[in-house]
Amino acid sequence: MTLPDAVGVVGLGVMGGSLARALSEQGVRVQGWSPDPAEVRAAVEQGALARAADSPEDSARGVAWWIVATPLSALPEVFRRGAPADPPRVMDVASLQGPAVTAAREAGVGPVHVSAHPMAGSERSGFEASRSDLYRGVPVWLSSGSGGEGPVADAEAFWAALEARPQRIDAADHDRRMAVASHLPQLASNVLARVLEAAGIAPDDLGPGGRDATRLAGSSPELWGDLLRYSGGDVAPLLRRLASEAEAVAGRLDAGDLEAVTEILDHTRRWRTS
Amino acid sequence: MTLPDAVGVVGLGVMGGSLARALSEQGVRVQGWSPDPAEVRAAVEQGALARAADSPEDSARGVAWWIVATPLSALPEVFRRGAPADPPRVMDVASLQGPAVTAAREAGVGPVHVSAHPMAGSERSGFEASRSDLYRGVPVWLSSGSGGEGPVADAEAFWAALEARPQRIDAADHDRRMAVASHLPQLASNVLARVLEAAGIAPDDLGPGGRDATRLAGSSPELWGDLLRYSGGDVAPLLRRLASEAEAVAGRLDAGDLEAVTEILDHTRRWRTS
Repeated sequence: MTLPDAVGVVGLGVMGGSLARALSEQGVRVQGWSPDPAEVRAAVEQGALARAADSPEDSARGVAWWIVATPLSALPEVFRRGAPADPPRVMDVASLQGPAVTAAREAGVGPVHVSAHPMAGSERSGFEASRSDLYRGVPVWLSSGSGGEGPVADAEAFWAALEARPQRIDAADHDRRMAVASHLPQLASNVLARVLEAAGIAPDDLGPGGRDATRLAGSSPELWGDLLRYSGGDVAPLLRRLASEAEAVAGRLDAGDLEAVTEILDHTRRWRTS
Repeated sequence: MTLPDAVGVVGLGVMGGSLARALSEQGVRVQGWSPDPAEVRAAVEQGALARAADSPEDSARGVAWWIVATPLSALPEVFRRGAPADPPRVMDVASLQGPAVTAAREAGVGPVHVSAHPMAGSERSGFEASRSDLYRGVPVWLSSGSGGEGPVADAEAFWAALEARPQRIDAADHDRRMAVASHLPQLASNVLARVLEAAGIAPDDLGPGGRDATRLAGSSPELWGDLLRYSGGDVAPLLRRLASEAEAVAGRLDAGDLEAVTEILDHTRRWRTS
């Protein structure tokens, strides 16, 4: 059995709610807390929680793993509140690992902490959008700060038991990678949505491709504002690069150089279908 | 019965192949031609065609509707070849209607022609990617050039019988609208893919949102080169607008003005979920 008997979860949105559902389905006893009492009620009613915890710190008591699934900006305070309960393993599922590792160290839970970033989510928010199979087959980036080998190895076993695909990474490498692979597509989708809206196009006017291209524009502004507070400096040059590529294609179109445009399309198709 | 007894189809890719499948399922006798003999064979074997036509002009003989589902650039020649067979109704399913209407008029089939643009497709190509339910529930823009009321009313009944949602539009209005709603998202996806590739990110490194945002980058370069030859002049200013919005967000990020960025995210979320 690689899953623990009891797990505490703080935050019952898409990430924490899906984790609570998946763990409960595997027979793990999950105790959880959310700032939204309606989410806690729903999670208990739907069997995702065995017990509603009274507070973040209460959710950390008597569990083998304590999982903090809050927005990044809440980590420092939540870690500090749970630290006295002395959970043997602490994990966050925030999308940036450098600031998570720092927050864990400063709260005194560094030696037992792992930062996990599952490459899954939803453009919808809250417990309602959670589902027990969210993490199945999904890559999960794992990095430890001061925790070293023990916590990361345990986290690998934890995610593997949920049928996810854990992979180790250095926290700083991870965050640079995410600025490109995650934060840039997010903002590209927002930027596209702005131009479409300004031109009088509604989402219902789009075909399936256009709807997919703007799906991320529906993501939570709070969550992303939070992440971009840390990664904005890395993302800005990528957005400028996007702008200059868009200008270059516009220039080719204006010049009637369709051969060059087709070559670009051909190149990106090879990348996308590789 | 709003569907005819016999239909001819030229081109058996995603659009023509899906139409042949859907019509055959409804008991229509479909005769079809494709420049790729393997596609014709597959379509006959899989019951999408009742008869393999010998040529584009052969597919136009003895049918109530003759449907030309080729790339836009092939329309003038195909229309000219089919015109002597004098089909009572001619329809194209190209994504731009101004050039299609012109080609029909110049080939002498203007009075019986309707240009139809179903808002459906696939980033994959060929008969293999076609499916009989492609058009179900999908908006189909219809415009006639010199054909007037009769052909458009017949086309409305035709698409309604396939459970699509036909809507009339002026050809020039349609094409301006598509530059925004279809061609801009396409190129935005290509541009994003270029930046991701240059930064060393593979499609498998993306989360579900990033994969959606770049799905269109896998589209056919031939098809799009063809469309952009006509619409490039309309799309270029939209790409420049995209570039300037991306620059603006980059500037906010560099200035650490997360409030402004969150406001943009909040605004596009309202648009996307409206």
